[in-house]
Amino acid sequence: MYFPSWLSQLYKGLSRPIRRTTQPIWGSLYRSLVQSPQRRNPEFNSFAVRTNTCGELRSSHLGQEVTLCGWIQYRRQNTFLVLRDFHGLVQVVIPQDESAASVKKILCEAPVESVVRVSGTVISRPAGQENPKMPTGEIEIKVKTAELLNACKKLPFEIKDFMKKTEALRLQYRYLDLRSFQMQYNLRLRSQMVMKMREYLCNLHGFVDIETPTLFKRTPGGAKEFLVPSREPGKFYSLPQSPQQFKQLLMVGGLDRYFQVARCYRDEGSRPDRQPEFTQIDIEMSFVDQTGIQSLIEGLLQYSWPNDKDPVVVPFPTVTFTEALATYGTDKPDTRFGMKIIDISDVFRNTEIGFLQDALSKPHGTVKAICIPEGAKYLKRRDIESIRKFAADHFNQEILPVFLNANRNWNSPVANFIMESQRLELIRLMDTQEEDVVLLTAGEHNKACSLLGKLRLECADLLETRGMVLRDPTLFSFLWVVDFPLFLPKEENPRELESAHHPFTAPHPSDIHLLYTEPQKARSQHYDLVLNGNEIGGGSIRIHNAELQHYILATLLKEDVKMLSHLLQALDYGAPPHGGIALGLDRLICLVTGSPSIRDVIAFPKSFRGHDLMSNAPDSIPPEELKPYHIRVSWPTDSKAERAH
Amino acid sequence: MYFPSWLSQLYKGLSRPIRRTTQPIWGSLYRSLVQSPQRRNPEFNSFAVRTNTCGELRSSHLGQEVTLCGWIQYRRQNTFLVLRDFHGLVQVVIPQDESAASVKKILCEAPVESVVRVSGTVISRPAGQENPKMPTGEIEIKVKTAELLNACKKLPFEIKDFMKKTEALRLQYRYLDLRSFQMQYNLRLRSQMVMKMREYLCNLHGFVDIETPTLFKRTPGGAKEFLVPSREPGKFYSLPQSPQQFKQLLMVGGLDRYFQVARCYRDEGSRPDRQPEFTQIDIEMSFVDQTGIQSLIEGLLQYSWPNDKDPVVVPFPTVTFTEALATYGTDKPDTRFGMKIIDISDVFRNTEIGFLQDALSKPHGTVKAICIPEGAKYLKRRDIESIRKFAADHFNQEILPVFLNANRNWNSPVANFIMESQRLELIRLMDTQEEDVVLLTAGEHNKACSLLGKLRLECADLLETRGMVLRDPTLFSFLWVVDFPLFLPKEENPRELESAHHPFTAPHPSDIHLLYTEPQKARSQHYDLVLNGNEIGGGSIRIHNAELQHYILATLLKEDVKMLSHLLQALDYGAPPHGGIALGLDRLICLVTGSPSIRDVIAFPKSFRGHDLMSNAPDSIPPEELKPYHIRVSWPTDSKAERAH
Repeated sequence: MYFPSWLSQLYKGLSRPIRRTTQPIWGSLYRSLVQSPQRRNPEFNSFAVRTNTCGELRSSHLGQEVTLCGWIQYRRQNTFLVLRDFHGLVQVVIPQDESAASVKKILCEAPVESVVRVSGTVISRPAGQENPKMPTGEIEIKVKTAELLNACKKLPFEIKDFMKKTEALRLQYRYLDLRSFQMQYNLRLRSQMVMKMREYLCNLHGFVDIETPTLFKRTPGGAKEFLVPSREPGKFYSLPQSPQQFKQLLMVGGLDRYFQVARCYRDEGSRPDRQPEFTQIDIEMSFVDQTGIQSLIEGLLQYSWPNDKDPVVVPFPTVTFTEALATYGTDKPDTRFGMKIIDISDVFRNTEIGFLQDALSKPHGTVKAICIPEGAKYLKRRDIESIRKFAADHFNQEILPVFLNANRNWNSPVANFIMESQRLELIRLMDTQEEDVVLLTAGEHNKACSLLGKLRLECADLLETRGMVLRDPTLFSFLWVVDFPLFLPKEENPRELESAHHPFTAPHPSDIHLLYTEPQKARSQHYDLVLNGNEIGGGSIRIHNAELQHYILATLLKEDVKMLSHLLQALDYGAPPHGGIALGLDRLICLVTGSPSIRDVIAFPKSFRGHDLMSNAPDSIPPEELKPYHIRVSWPTDSKAERAH
Repeated sequence: MYFPSWLSQLYKGLSRPIRRTTQPIWGSLYRSLVQSPQRRNPEFNSFAVRTNTCGELRSSHLGQEVTLCGWIQYRRQNTFLVLRDFHGLVQVVIPQDESAASVKKILCEAPVESVVRVSGTVISRPAGQENPKMPTGEIEIKVKTAELLNACKKLPFEIKDFMKKTEALRLQYRYLDLRSFQMQYNLRLRSQMVMKMREYLCNLHGFVDIETPTLFKRTPGGAKEFLVPSREPGKFYSLPQSPQQFKQLLMVGGLDRYFQVARCYRDEGSRPDRQPEFTQIDIEMSFVDQTGIQSLIEGLLQYSWPNDKDPVVVPFPTVTFTEALATYGTDKPDTRFGMKIIDISDVFRNTEIGFLQDALSKPHGTVKAICIPEGAKYLKRRDIESIRKFAADHFNQEILPVFLNANRNWNSPVANFIMESQRLELIRLMDTQEEDVVLLTAGEHNKACSLLGKLRLECADLLETRGMVLRDPTLFSFLWVVDFPLFLPKEENPRELESAHHPFTAPHPSDIHLLYTEPQKARSQHYDLVLNGNEIGGGSIRIHNAELQHYILATLLKEDVKMLSHLLQALDYGAPPHGGIALGLDRLICLVTGSPSIRDVIAFPKSFRGHDLMSNAPDSIPPEELKPYHIRVSWPTDSKAERAH
C-alpha cells in the first residue's frame, strides 16, 4: 500500500531526512569490491591494456612497472595529478626533466576528466607526504610514458558535486553522474548482491533460472499495463506487471523450482519514487508451504547480504495483518522503534470527556494512544497543532495530546478532566517517562489505528530532524506480515469483493469454508516481507485446484474467466501445490545502500514523469512509422490546434 | 546475415535433417543436474514437503523412510506405478493388503499425470526384476501413506509423445510440453550455462551486471523496433533491439566492465526461427582491444561449457571476412567439414569452353569449384539438375558438374572439352578422389563464391540425408570472422553508404585514412563469432572520439545526428576507448542442445507469426483502454467491413 508523505508537505523543509551511507565512501567501495574471505577476488585487469587499477596500488607494489588507465581527477601546480578509475585514486608525479617534455605536455594540458594512459614505476611518497586517508596514500607513480586517450570538454559541473546538483541535471548527464563514488558503489553492490542471490538459488538449492516473455496478453483488470501494438490490426501485446501466470504455468510444467530476476512494467503515470519498469526477484516452487517459502527467503537474504553490513539474523519475526494494524496502524510496520499503539479503552470506561464517551458507546469504539518519547522536549506547540489539524482534515478524528508534566498541557483543554487514577493507569499501560507526550484518539478501531500509525511515523521523522536518534541507521529490521484478508470490498462498490492481492492467492486452510458463507472474512495464505517499514516482498501459496479457482474468479470476483481459460485448463491437468514470492529489488537495494530514492540504484532511471531526460524518451514518431501497427494518434482538441500553428 | 533455406523447399521432404541430442536423455538430464566435481551439488529437497526427488533414489537409500511428490507416469495392473518428477522416475509398489485399502484406492484410481504424495520405505526390487536402464532401477518404494494432491483430466495426448506432435499443439499446451524430458533438459542446461557465464564474468573477472532500460527512445533507422504508446499524446517509447547505446554510456560513466543477460526486441513480422523478444549475453569493457574481447569470450565459453559435452578448445581459429567469402562463400562458415571453394581460374586460362572463356575475359572474372566427396555415389541426376536450375534461377550462373569417372559425365556436354592436362591439374588442386564430383562455376568473384557457398551447405545436407556422415554431431566448431567492411552500399541506392553493422563501429586502425578518401574500402574492427555455420555473436571496438563519430554519422551516413546528440555529447566528456560483444543466447543454447529450433530452448516462445498460442496474445483491446494512450486503431478498409457484420 502507498501513503503520501503528508506531513512532509505540511512542514516545508522538514521532509523525512535523507539517510546516506554512513561509512566513508572509500572504505565501503573498497570493501564492496572485495569478496568474502573464502572467495577468490575478481581479476579486474584481465584482457585489458592496463596492468593495475588505480585504486589497488599499495606499498607491496613498490618498484613494479605498471600501466594505468583513468580519468584526471585533479592536477596540482603541474607537478602531480590524481588519476581515478572505478577502484579509487592514485597520485601520479608529472616528470619535470627536459627529456620528458612530451609526457609533461600531455599531462599538464589535458583537461580534468580527460582519459589518459600512463606507464611508470610505483615509488614511495617522500617522507611526510603520505596520505593515510587515501588507500593508495603511501605510494605514487613515477611516469615514463603517457598517452591522452580522449580529451574532456568543459563539464557542466564537477563530478564530485554531482550529488548536490538537481536531480534533473544528474539524469540529463547520467553518464557523468555514474562516475560518482556513490553511484559506483550502489550499482556494484547491486550486482554483487544479485549474484549471491543467484548462487544461493541456483547452485545451493537447485532453482532454475527461466526467462518468461514480456510481450504477453492483457490480464483481466490489467489497467496499469503498457500496450504494444502488433502488426495485426487491433491486436496488442501487453507488458506484464509480473510473471505471475508464467511462473504458475512452469509449476504445472514440472519445473519445480523457478526463479528469475524479472523485468516488470507498470504504467501508473506520474508517481514519485516509482519506475515504469522495475525488477523483481521472482520465485516459485512446488510442494511447499508458507513456512518453506519464508525459510527460503530468510536464507536468501542472509546469504546475499553485503559483507560491509551487520549480518542478517534469522528467522525474522512474524505478525499477523490484524496485529500489525492494531499495533502499528499499517500492514508494513517500521519495527526499528517502539511508539506502539496501545488500546487504552479500559482506562476511560467512566470518563467524563465527551468525545471519548461518544466513541466508547459505539459498537467498535475504542480509545487508542501512542507515546512520543521526550515529545515535551522535541515537539513544538505548532507541531501539535498541525497534528490535530491533519487528524481532523484527513480522518475526521480528534487527537488529544496528554503531557505528563501538567504545566505543559497547553492546547489540551480536556486534559483537566483526566483523573489522577486514569493518569497513573495511563503511565503504567504506556510505560511513559517524565518528558513523554501521549497522543490519544478515539473512534472505530481501524480508523484510530490508521491515524495513529501515520502519526507514529511522522513524529519519528520529526523527532529525528530535531536531533533525536530514534532509528539506528545500521539496523535492518525485517518482519513477516501474514494472515491478510483474502478479499476486500471494492472501493467503488463496497458490496462487491476484489482480491486483496491477486485472484490466484490460496485461502487460509482454516477459512476455506468461509468462501461459501462469509467470503469477506476469509484470510489468505499471502505473506508480505517488510524491511524498516517498507514492503520489499510479497507472495502466497497459490490455488492449485481448478474448481476452487473457477469459483473464486467467476462467482466471487465476477471476472471474465475466458481471459484466463488457459490457466484454469492448466490447473486441471495435474497442477502441483505451489507457492512463491517476489522481492522488489530496486527498493531492497535502495534500503541496503541507504539511498534517498530508487533512482539512485538504477543505472538509467526515468524521471517521476516517466521521461528519460538524457535521450528525451518517450518521443514523437512520424505517422508513417505508425502505419504498420494500424494505429493513429488521437490528438486532444487543443493540442491539435497547437500543432496546426 | 540471413539466407532462406531454398533447397529445402526445392526438395520437399529433404529438408536439413533435425539433429537431436544423441545421448540417451536420462543420462544427460542426470548429468546436467550434477555439477562439476569441485562443486557441491544443489539441495533439491530443501524447504519442500518431500524428502527426496523421484530420480535420486539408489541402493544406498535402502531402508530409508522417504516422502516423494510426483506425477503418475503409468500404472501396471494395479500392482505398481511409476512416479515422475523433474529428476527422473521411480517405481512405487501399490499395497495389496486389506489394511491399506484406502492407499490402494488412491493409487489405483488417480488418472495418469495426476500429482500424488507417497510416503514409504526404499526397498530392493525382487531378484531378476531390476531395471539396469533406469537409474533408480535397483529399488522400489513400499508405500505406507498416499495422498492425491491434484487429479488430472484426460490429456489431449501423452506427454512422452509430445515431441512427435505438431508444434502448434505443443505451444498451445506448453505447460504439458514442459514436462517432457527434452524440454526439462534444455531449460535446465540453459540455466546452468548462464549461471556459469555469470560466475566467470562477475566473480572471476570483475564485470558488473547492470540492468538497462527497455522503454527507450527510437533509434535512427530503428524500423524494426516495437512501439509503446505513452500517456502523452503522440509520444512513444521504443523497445530497443539491444542495449548498445546504454552500454557505451556506461563506459563513459566509468563502469569499466559491464555485462547483462539482456532482453532484446525486434519486430520483423513473421519469420521462421526468430522471436520478437530474445536474449543476448551483452558485454562491454573499457581499455581493451579486439584480441582482449576475443580472449574474454573464449574463456567464457570454455568455463561455461556443459560437462556432458567435449571441452571447448581455445583459442578459436580466425579468418578474415575476405577469406571466409573466398573459401566458404559466406561470412559464417560451417567449418566442421571441408568442401572449400577453390579458385581454378589458372587451369582454364586457355580453355575452349565458352562460358569459362567469357568469364575469364572480364576484369574480376574467375573460375571456382567445390568438390563433393563421393558425389558420384550419393548425388542423383535430378540433384544435379536442381542444382543447375537453382544456380541459373537465383544467381544467373552456370554450374558445370565434372565427374572424374568420365562415364558419369551425363548432363555436362562441355566436359568433353576439358583437356587431360586440365583434368589432372584439377585433381591436384582440388585433391579429388575417384568417386568425387566437382561443381564448377565461372563469373565475378563474390557472386561465384556466394553461389558455391550455398551449394556447399545444401550438398552437405543432401549427402547426410543420403547416409554419409559428414559432420560429427558432437563437434562444436568455433570460428572468429574479422576485418569486415565498415560500410556497404545501400541496397536501394548503391551510391550511398550504410553501416555494415552499426554506426558506432570503429574503423580498422590501418584504414582510418580511407574514411576521407575511399570510405567504401575501409575495414572495421567488427568481429563475428561463428559456431557450426551459425553466427552466435558479434561485436566491435567502438568509436570513442566524438569528432570521428560525428563525421561518420553526419557526413558519410547522412543520419540525423540530433537523435544521437546525447551519445555524441557523452563521447566529448572523457569517453574511454572501449569495445564489446553480444552473444545470441537462444541460438547458442539451441546449438549446444542440438535442438531443431530456438523455440525448444525458450520456455514460452511465440509461434513464427508472433503469437502466444497458449494465451492467445496479441489480443484485442477495448477502445476505452486505448484512450489514455491517445491512440486509435486504423482498421484496414476490408477488415472494417468485416467488423460491421
